[in-house]
Amino acid sequence: MNQYWSRRIRDIVPYTPGEQPKDRKFIKLNTNECPYPPSPRVVEAIQEAAGECLRLYPDPECLDLRTAIARREGLDVSQVFCGNGSDEILAFAFQAFFNPDREVVFPSITYSFYPVYANFFGLKFREVPMNPDFSIPIDLLCGHNGGIVLANPNAPTGIAAGLDAVEKVLTANPDAVVIVDEAYIDFGADSAVGLIDRYPNLLVVQTSSKSRALAGLRVGWAMGNPGLIGGLRCVRDSINSYTVDRLAQAGAAAAFRDEDYFQGICRRVINTRERTVRALKDKNFTVLSSQTNFLFVSCPGRAGRALLDGLRERGILVRWWDRPDIQDWLRISIGTDEEMDALVQALCELIV
Amino acid sequence: MNQYWSRRIRDIVPYTPGEQPKDRKFIKLNTNECPYPPSPRVVEAIQEAAGECLRLYPDPECLDLRTAIARREGLDVSQVFCGNGSDEILAFAFQAFFNPDREVVFPSITYSFYPVYANFFGLKFREVPMNPDFSIPIDLLCGHNGGIVLANPNAPTGIAAGLDAVEKVLTANPDAVVIVDEAYIDFGADSAVGLIDRYPNLLVVQTSSKSRALAGLRVGWAMGNPGLIGGLRCVRDSINSYTVDRLAQAGAAAAFRDEDYFQGICRRVINTRERTVRALKDKNFTVLSSQTNFLFVSCPGRAGRALLDGLRERGILVRWWDRPDIQDWLRISIGTDEEMDALVQALCELIV
Repeated sequence: MNQYWSRRIRDIVPYTPGEQPKDRKFIKLNTNECPYPPSPRVVEAIQEAAGECLRLYPDPECLDLRTAIARREGLDVSQVFCGNGSDEILAFAFQAFFNPDREVVFPSITYSFYPVYANFFGLKFREVPMNPDFSIPIDLLCGHNGGIVLANPNAPTGIAAGLDAVEKVLTANPDAVVIVDEAYIDFGADSAVGLIDRYPNLLVVQTSSKSRALAGLRVGWAMGNPGLIGGLRCVRDSINSYTVDRLAQAGAAAAFRDEDYFQGICRRVINTRERTVRALKDKNFTVLSSQTNFLFVSCPGRAGRALLDGLRERGILVRWWDRPDIQDWLRISIGTDEEMDALVQALCELIV
Repeated sequence: MNQYWSRRIRDIVPYTPGEQPKDRKFIKLNTNECPYPPSPRVVEAIQEAAGECLRLYPDPECLDLRTAIARREGLDVSQVFCGNGSDEILAFAFQAFFNPDREVVFPSITYSFYPVYANFFGLKFREVPMNPDFSIPIDLLCGHNGGIVLANPNAPTGIAAGLDAVEKVLTANPDAVVIVDEAYIDFGADSAVGLIDRYPNLLVVQTSSKSRALAGLRVGWAMGNPGLIGGLRCVRDSINSYTVDRLAQAGAAAAFRDEDYFQGICRRVINTRERTVRALKDKNFTVLSSQTNFLFVSCPGRAGRALLDGLRERGILVRWWDRPDIQDWLRISIGTDEEMDALVQALCELIV
């Protein structure tokens, strides 16, 4: 705190990202990064773009990248918006579509940035309780809300709702924007992108940080009705004309144009996930049904914090939240087969 | 406009950046980009960083880049904050340090993003009239203000105030943050960085987009008392955990470590600037005394818009604002000697 801080930030509790260690070599399963490198075409595109042209501003409208995304998704470029990671897109969306007088609604166990955005932008919000099995309480998202944010699949639970459930929420909130956060969509669940033409209040947000192995580049995008895209542009152009740099635009566009590589990565991660689920369940761990690149895991009678610390001592980083409703659970990213073998081994040693 | 837009954005008039043409080859003198490539070390650093590690999130604290900046500026890393271009830094600063109930003050002719930020963040502001010679009205910035934003050197005028004037503003506003926007500091003017230890309300903002030829990478930074830096971090961590990607951090740090190259670029731009000033004055153009990498130019009796259009027809892009107080002026970036020769030639043809 400091005498010069505005009232806006004095009481804010910002988001804390997962640990990014510098000093020691860890098996890093705490921030859902892809265990494999990006497509070779990404590196080629970056090498080509990293020259004399760096002196020039990037395309403020990210036209080539948006074209690559639109082509893959069967959309028009006017239905696509790009930003500096999906966190930035979400922050823009909160500002573009939600008003202070009506509550924004999201599940009580979900991406923990949503309440941070709401508080920072002076928005009221309501967290609705999960179903007992940790699935998303769809009926509780249907009502007269100021906006909905639905992470689908949800984090940290890993559970996805079907598109019929998503449509139910859209139909029940015709006057409010429903943000479907599909950061983890590429590992088995169904995307709501196909609903965009039918629902002008639907905004789908995705990222290159997980399935496209580009967490280091910071590229996210939103897809929706051109009116919603225009709202995001309005926010961006009131803050920062150029949010996605030249190399990020070139690299991400190349990733989007290497469909085979992308599908291969997703298959490998899914296979390793299922293999790990079987191994953990064999050892009597509770594992929620996941359609993401992470698992939500607990061991009956074991405190999550102790497991977190024990894993860290054994050189493995996972994610844990100090809150009563999930304090006995760990969120564990899917790494390579070898990394997951080491994880399972370490967990078993801890519960002996 | 769209039914789903929040009240916050319905009446906003966002910032319009200079044209970034795709289709035709222009002599581009409209957004103050560096006419020369970045240091070769930048490209090397990017090539090295553009590999398997792209799958990992960047350092959220930009430690290596901040260390490079701090070392050059004689500061501690706790006095340095990095962001996705200085536009983002300024946006964070407006949110971190200004409150809605007290006016933020800046000159009436200055970087046109300041009123955009103020409007977008719901802040009152007051624009103080320039001195008749377009210099900054320092006395009018001294008073009981909610905050000051002083572009020094100023844009689009190109005129710098000395450090005694900056100190006067700092001393007169001990309870408010004074942001000194030094985007153009490297072309002859004196930086206020040396005042940081004495003035806890001073925030200096700089960018790699002009003198370090990295407009395409989007790297800006702020320097100030650790309490102010903490305020910027609070805003960032409420919006986006990782604002500067891996390649931008690597490239900008390399640029900061190639002092010789940087000094060489600044010298070349200054030489070309002075050469161009003489050539224009020889032809009776009015040129304000510039300490930046652009010139503010007018021709007695000639409308700025006509000159803008005439130059565009001749393949040269410059910047012009449709406002009564500067409608007869053009802001012209300093390019290569050849580009400036072409510019002077074209201007002369237009006024024949």
